[in-house]
Amino acid sequence: MSARSAETLAIGSELLGPSRLDTNGLYLSRRLGERGFTVRFRTAVGDDPDDLRSAFDVAIRRSDVVVATGGLGPTVDDLTREAVAGLLGLPLEEDLAVLAGIEARFRSLGLVMPPRNRRQAEVPRGAVVLPNPLGTAPGLLLRHQDRTIALLPGVPAEMRAMVDAALLPLLGTTGERFVDRVLRIAGLGESEVDRRLLDVHRDRGPVEWTILAMVGQIEIHLRQKVEEKAAAPDVERLDAAIAAVLGAHLFGRDDATLESVIGDLLLRRGAKLAVAESLTGGAVARRITGVPGASRYFRGGVVAYSDDAKRDLAAVPEAVLREHGAVSEPAALGMAAGIAARLGADWGLATTGYAGPEGGDTAHPPGTVFLAVAGPGLRRARALTLPGDRSQVQERSTTAALDYLRRALLEAGA
Amino acid sequence: MSARSAETLAIGSELLGPSRLDTNGLYLSRRLGERGFTVRFRTAVGDDPDDLRSAFDVAIRRSDVVVATGGLGPTVDDLTREAVAGLLGLPLEEDLAVLAGIEARFRSLGLVMPPRNRRQAEVPRGAVVLPNPLGTAPGLLLRHQDRTIALLPGVPAEMRAMVDAALLPLLGTTGERFVDRVLRIAGLGESEVDRRLLDVHRDRGPVEWTILAMVGQIEIHLRQKVEEKAAAPDVERLDAAIAAVLGAHLFGRDDATLESVIGDLLLRRGAKLAVAESLTGGAVARRITGVPGASRYFRGGVVAYSDDAKRDLAAVPEAVLREHGAVSEPAALGMAAGIAARLGADWGLATTGYAGPEGGDTAHPPGTVFLAVAGPGLRRARALTLPGDRSQVQERSTTAALDYLRRALLEAGA
Repeated sequence: MSARSAETLAIGSELLGPSRLDTNGLYLSRRLGERGFTVRFRTAVGDDPDDLRSAFDVAIRRSDVVVATGGLGPTVDDLTREAVAGLLGLPLEEDLAVLAGIEARFRSLGLVMPPRNRRQAEVPRGAVVLPNPLGTAPGLLLRHQDRTIALLPGVPAEMRAMVDAALLPLLGTTGERFVDRVLRIAGLGESEVDRRLLDVHRDRGPVEWTILAMVGQIEIHLRQKVEEKAAAPDVERLDAAIAAVLGAHLFGRDDATLESVIGDLLLRRGAKLAVAESLTGGAVARRITGVPGASRYFRGGVVAYSDDAKRDLAAVPEAVLREHGAVSEPAALGMAAGIAARLGADWGLATTGYAGPEGGDTAHPPGTVFLAVAGPGLRRARALTLPGDRSQVQERSTTAALDYLRRALLEAGA
Repeated sequence: MSARSAETLAIGSELLGPSRLDTNGLYLSRRLGERGFTVRFRTAVGDDPDDLRSAFDVAIRRSDVVVATGGLGPTVDDLTREAVAGLLGLPLEEDLAVLAGIEARFRSLGLVMPPRNRRQAEVPRGAVVLPNPLGTAPGLLLRHQDRTIALLPGVPAEMRAMVDAALLPLLGTTGERFVDRVLRIAGLGESEVDRRLLDVHRDRGPVEWTILAMVGQIEIHLRQKVEEKAAAPDVERLDAAIAAVLGAHLFGRDDATLESVIGDLLLRRGAKLAVAESLTGGAVARRITGVPGASRYFRGGVVAYSDDAKRDLAAVPEAVLREHGAVSEPAALGMAAGIAARLGADWGLATTGYAGPEGGDTAHPPGTVFLAVAGPGLRRARALTLPGDRSQVQERSTTAALDYLRRALLEAGA
């Protein structure tokens, strides 16, 4: 047995417009990958008979396993069954057991099956019916020469349940699986990460290595194909090597976020946090409080958009604001120390600056940002000049502020 | 001339894994649609020479216009140029003007061009170079028989700028265009919107009608194909009919957001806003301050996560907290009125509740939320019980709070 190639088709004209993406493909990639199937193409196609036929024709020619989602509903727009049956030269036949199941489902909801749902009981000759415990549209599995074609409903919850319960067992195993690891990095740009990891990357062996730049952070995605029950020693080796090179720049793995790491550090130290934000406008607090259990270490925060608010809410001395202005290092330090004192927190984190497009002056154009941290025996601030439009400056400032706090917490020790 | 078919290819192995979707396709669908090009397929393909060749071969056979994004970088993984040149039998030639541009870009950043970036100056013979004002990878436009193939970088900001400045003018016009309209609705569920608009939907004529449910809001997408310079009378007719049926539930069109509508209402009234948040944790302030110019009407806010913070920052009377608890209608009203008074704002908006998974009790399970608004001569609060996990409850509460304020501002008149 060896790994096989897969591709996914997402069916529905709404998936080709300006507002909707095929999210089912993510789930299919993950579950197929765990079984050792490599997804090589992911295609969205509309509810058009010719286009559907073209998409299935192409997919069946080039991939061992084709998984399509959508187009199995009862309306005239739902053409997946017809397209595949036509392409493979199979007659559609009413399956009485499927029909009875659909009727029973409507009865259980106190309804009579509308006539149009009868179409959902039509099955291409020879297809295996995949039961749908959550909806009326059954799935279908066809074998064509050495290819496997699965048709699933597009409703995510129905699709997921059917993949796990019916499709994966029928697909069997390739004897292999993919092991995935995400390493999360803050405080370094993509090219700097690249440069520092040149030697590690060269020795990556059989591991696929993808580097992704997000706003204010970098991800390295490692993937190794191993035998079904085997560990992934190269992934572990690379993980350790990357950690050794990047040190504190590597802040977490897989689902970790800067804010979840900060939460762990605060809990371990038994410490409380408060924040005072200007240009980030609540985004720092929002990320901190997005972590379940944040109330155990987060006291609260202020969004001090006006000078008055900086003075009244964050307890920044009037003299500091008058002398240095609200967008200054002293003001940031005053906000961090002031909010911590005010809310009885051990740590205070503050942001001030100009996000643009309004505000600022020649010396302080939009993108000028000051961060400050106040903690036990510690007060520090830094200035940043960030590129991008308003929302990018806000997002980068937020990430930079969280990372600044994380490093201060790390240094402060356990 | 008649409308032509288009398809998009998103290139990069990371787009086939479990964590990343091709968002560039949304922008391309919109901009191509405005010119009358119908996107019929949207495919993601990895950085594999054979797969790339297969994807381009299929696309060029079946679509008039093929727009590919990604794979134009300087690394060995970037294979788009080679794949297309190989498929079409075109030699790659170094373009000295492109090379000079890349070198100049590095120089302007105080850097010397690394040798590997030289690859980005290779151009398939006969291709038109599309300048990239924001990055080093130029785009390429090829004509092959009656097909047009565009290769663009995958970085969204670079791609967008090049589509608008270079690609669309070169694609010319189909003689038709799609007119798109998004109607944004808050405060009603999808099935209720469906029910109320049954008659309007029946009379939709030639307009494509898609209804999308987001967290806490509903969108209706209308699309009509018309001649290039023509208006879209059916879109206007449906817009007016939907507005008449839904009244204040319809809060905006196209790019409007609840927070941008709130900003307009506050500016028109010359009024200032302050917010006090508990379970939304800064998300309300974050959305308000995401609107450019928010400093003209937003005074600031507090994230009052602890009882102390509700009392000290939002000026909620101790007696209210003692008697009713922090998750109560009186506490919400106290927070809204307290923060407005404290920051000298005309309007105060407050949220309190349990987002889960921790907190709450039998009478107040996670999902219990109180909203309050205080304005000139107005104080009101409402209780909500929201479904979902922590992040869904936070997001729904935030949207509900913004909508609650919007309706109060509307009632208060101009």
